[in-house]
Amino acid sequence: MLDAKWHSALTEWRKLLGPDAVVLDPAALFAVETTTFPTAQTVPAILRPSSREEVQECLRIATRFHVPVYPRSSGKNWGYGSGVPPQSNCAILDLSRMNRILDCNEKLAYVTVEPGVTQQQLYDFLTRQKSNLWMDATGSSPHTSLIGNIMERGFGHTPHGDHFAQSCGLEVVLPTGDVVETGYSRFPNSVTGPLYRWGVGPFLDGLFSQSNFGVVTRMTIWLMPAPAHFEAFLFRCDHQAQLGPLIEALCRLRLAGTIQSAVHVGNDYKVLSSLQQYPWEITQGKTPLLPDQMDSIRTRLQFGVWNGSGGLYGTKSQVRAARREIRRALAGKVTQLRFLDDRMLALSLKFAKPIKLLSGWDLSKTVALLQPLYGLLKGIPTDRPLQSAYWRKPSPIPAQMDPDRDRCGLLWLAPIIPSDAGDVAKIKSVTSETLLAAGFEPMISLTMITGRAIACIIAISFDRDIPGEDQRAMACYRALASQVTALGYYSYRLGIQSMEEMDGSASYVSLLRTLKSAVDPAGILAPGRYEVEQNPKSGVAAAS
Amino acid sequence: MLDAKWHSALTEWRKLLGPDAVVLDPAALFAVETTTFPTAQTVPAILRPSSREEVQECLRIATRFHVPVYPRSSGKNWGYGSGVPPQSNCAILDLSRMNRILDCNEKLAYVTVEPGVTQQQLYDFLTRQKSNLWMDATGSSPHTSLIGNIMERGFGHTPHGDHFAQSCGLEVVLPTGDVVETGYSRFPNSVTGPLYRWGVGPFLDGLFSQSNFGVVTRMTIWLMPAPAHFEAFLFRCDHQAQLGPLIEALCRLRLAGTIQSAVHVGNDYKVLSSLQQYPWEITQGKTPLLPDQMDSIRTRLQFGVWNGSGGLYGTKSQVRAARREIRRALAGKVTQLRFLDDRMLALSLKFAKPIKLLSGWDLSKTVALLQPLYGLLKGIPTDRPLQSAYWRKPSPIPAQMDPDRDRCGLLWLAPIIPSDAGDVAKIKSVTSETLLAAGFEPMISLTMITGRAIACIIAISFDRDIPGEDQRAMACYRALASQVTALGYYSYRLGIQSMEEMDGSASYVSLLRTLKSAVDPAGILAPGRYEVEQNPKSGVAAAS
Repeated sequence: MLDAKWHSALTEWRKLLGPDAVVLDPAALFAVETTTFPTAQTVPAILRPSSREEVQECLRIATRFHVPVYPRSSGKNWGYGSGVPPQSNCAILDLSRMNRILDCNEKLAYVTVEPGVTQQQLYDFLTRQKSNLWMDATGSSPHTSLIGNIMERGFGHTPHGDHFAQSCGLEVVLPTGDVVETGYSRFPNSVTGPLYRWGVGPFLDGLFSQSNFGVVTRMTIWLMPAPAHFEAFLFRCDHQAQLGPLIEALCRLRLAGTIQSAVHVGNDYKVLSSLQQYPWEITQGKTPLLPDQMDSIRTRLQFGVWNGSGGLYGTKSQVRAARREIRRALAGKVTQLRFLDDRMLALSLKFAKPIKLLSGWDLSKTVALLQPLYGLLKGIPTDRPLQSAYWRKPSPIPAQMDPDRDRCGLLWLAPIIPSDAGDVAKIKSVTSETLLAAGFEPMISLTMITGRAIACIIAISFDRDIPGEDQRAMACYRALASQVTALGYYSYRLGIQSMEEMDGSASYVSLLRTLKSAVDPAGILAPGRYEVEQNPKSGVAAAS
Repeated sequence: MLDAKWHSALTEWRKLLGPDAVVLDPAALFAVETTTFPTAQTVPAILRPSSREEVQECLRIATRFHVPVYPRSSGKNWGYGSGVPPQSNCAILDLSRMNRILDCNEKLAYVTVEPGVTQQQLYDFLTRQKSNLWMDATGSSPHTSLIGNIMERGFGHTPHGDHFAQSCGLEVVLPTGDVVETGYSRFPNSVTGPLYRWGVGPFLDGLFSQSNFGVVTRMTIWLMPAPAHFEAFLFRCDHQAQLGPLIEALCRLRLAGTIQSAVHVGNDYKVLSSLQQYPWEITQGKTPLLPDQMDSIRTRLQFGVWNGSGGLYGTKSQVRAARREIRRALAGKVTQLRFLDDRMLALSLKFAKPIKLLSGWDLSKTVALLQPLYGLLKGIPTDRPLQSAYWRKPSPIPAQMDPDRDRCGLLWLAPIIPSDAGDVAKIKSVTSETLLAAGFEPMISLTMITGRAIACIIAISFDRDIPGEDQRAMACYRALASQVTALGYYSYRLGIQSMEEMDGSASYVSLLRTLKSAVDPAGILAPGRYEVEQNPKSGVAAAS
């Protein structure tokens, strides 16, 4: 199946990395070919470099033999294709062995890391150091790569939630094998590489995010000093009509700077999927869970049609001032609004048992559900949200989750919409109608990532073990995606299932191709990643 | 002097724009060849397109005849070369006729503008609209271009002070004449172009800042809703030893988010140059103004060795909470700390006369000096800081300032340094020693643009009418620049006098050249701008 070029490249890679770091084992290859939706891509090999120099040499070999490689840090990009390349016959360049935390500056609040460093690893490191710094975490697995998420422009929940905006000083291996450092790091004697984002001259970091222009092998991530006081606010709406006014009030609070971090609002389906698996007993084994069934579950479990949370960071008096503003702004727009701090959370845990004895109300369960969410607002990684990947699985959620291995079905569609009641209503209605009609539950979260824009994250969650479900889910995804873009909403991030959305004005596509050809003349780095399909490069075509 | 290619290009440009919009008048050409330091560049023509389509066609003609063009918006980049091209024989592409405010959205807080729109024009527009939005202003002339400043990554004083970070949705004419729109604007039906910065796929806006990769003909600028309450804080240090601890305290306040905008700290020379022209009478006509002379002036005029200001934005209680924190953090680190709001400023104006009658203290003068600074913190443009360009001129400052025309000498050096007492001490000492030794006053301002980095803006202010002064100033600039980079500090922005600082690691320079050749194969756009000198392109060489 592999031609002479591949054999030559594999020989060279083996010489370079040693035989153990060039993986051809069918089970390992199958694992990296697998994601949470159907794919046909085959992966001929996995390369496991342990240093930047080895990454350079791997790319030089790829260029020499015209065989493409596809980098992956942790490969846990679930719902967007995990670590599966968008095109067949790319060797995986697995960066997970490069997992050093190279620098940590407590005073100027940053760390410098390699691509294999995970959220949990950084969190543990900061804890061990007794650091006063908080990281930001994304609501995925604690074992995802920090750099991987940042380069996908993922987001989190603290004031540092816009991950890409809090990064600087990249070290990038170009497809040719050359290395560049961005910002001031390109000057050998500079002392400000980790401190200032723009550098001097054209700002290039953006070129390497959501692209296939280089392999990032090092990055500085800015952290936030732990605030003197932290408080979460939690709210719910019991009526659909509250959503529009709520969103507009929250966006005004964001624009005014009263709320300095993302606010997350999820619908009832979204909340239920994070609380439990599919309620087969209520639906008598049928899918989807219908709105009236959802209504009665929601009433019983006491959450709202929309449920939200955000964090307040500052001194006690600053937080108090913000709390007052939020109370005032949300009055009448939410059914319930609560504020929670460390002390109250600890008290709840302490009194959970006596309260249960006295009232029968199992507070500990509420607290257990709340804690991961509360922690995320403080940048503590959690795998709690990942449980929703197992929503439709008939078996219980395993202790070690792996949605790829466990044939969980998951597809994310993530359009950005304006901070406007009308747009929120439109996206809600098109999502609910399309998903329910196709037999899936409309799980929607709205994250106010700025005062102007909302990231609307829509999940299609299904069971890949049910025959035909893969195809039904993909068809539903395509139908929804085309309706959403027809409304003028475009994704903040694409999975390998949706790279065709990169197609925009012809001149823009042409500029992207011009830039790509300039930095990757052999076309060997991650072909098809954040680019519009075109005729494959001759070398790659010959290899496939 | 101009060869056949130039004549052909001029003929085509005249056909396109009409004869009035192709300026060859020697006086007009002399004006655009002139800046605040010596240059030898000659400009063969000024093109004045009135639309994006005309810009496209101008560049197509330039490409066809291999003659370079150099865009300028308002040309008021004083201290960095005004609008003078870094290389000879570039036609100026004057964008000032494209001065429409194309969109203003009050709810989502943005405007969309063309490159000719000035700070004052936007300010007047917002005032006329009775808008609730505040812009950010840079401390230069009110008649500078907004887009010009943003693309130079200039900064201002409100929470939107990082200008480039508050922009999105660029329309860019590429050197080939093609047009691209960045972010979601590239999708014809998108509704989020002005609302979200990163778009999908590689983020390209950075490529067009501090570069010669394209001509920006439209941009969205995010504005801030006027806060419920605004207060300025003003402080001074009477002892050099206070500076280090002060800077570190301010940076902690920035990192903690208590202060959400830039804090500006200027030394005594800097303050004096904004209050008055050179005190020839005190020095008996000699230069420079020596430190002990400075000491006695400072004591008499009652300002500090270091003098600072910043703004607090929010509700009354939020501002009160911040004020309390600032008082606590700066205690002992400043000689004086004052807070000022609109009410207090109005009262001061009202009672200035009676106070003067009673106490002899001319409060109105203090207020007059304070008002422009106070206004800048609210985003109100002022030409007050520009007066310092006339520092060494023997004649009074004219009502209509034009430092180029008036042969003011001004050179800026603008390194970024870490937010660290040691680095501040180093830059202060190397600047003071080098400038005083060369016969110039060390005017230094430190702007804490983030919690991690300080923009250190150093002015060399001189009189171009004094023989030899041009050369002395340039020599002093070069001596200082090389010492500053030897310390590991690099500029946040370069003037045409310092493009050699773009030289860094060879691989980075090579990447920049690769990208430039890809987007501008004919090398016709702004050669030498933010790039390392190289052998001129054949076409350009033939033309020069």
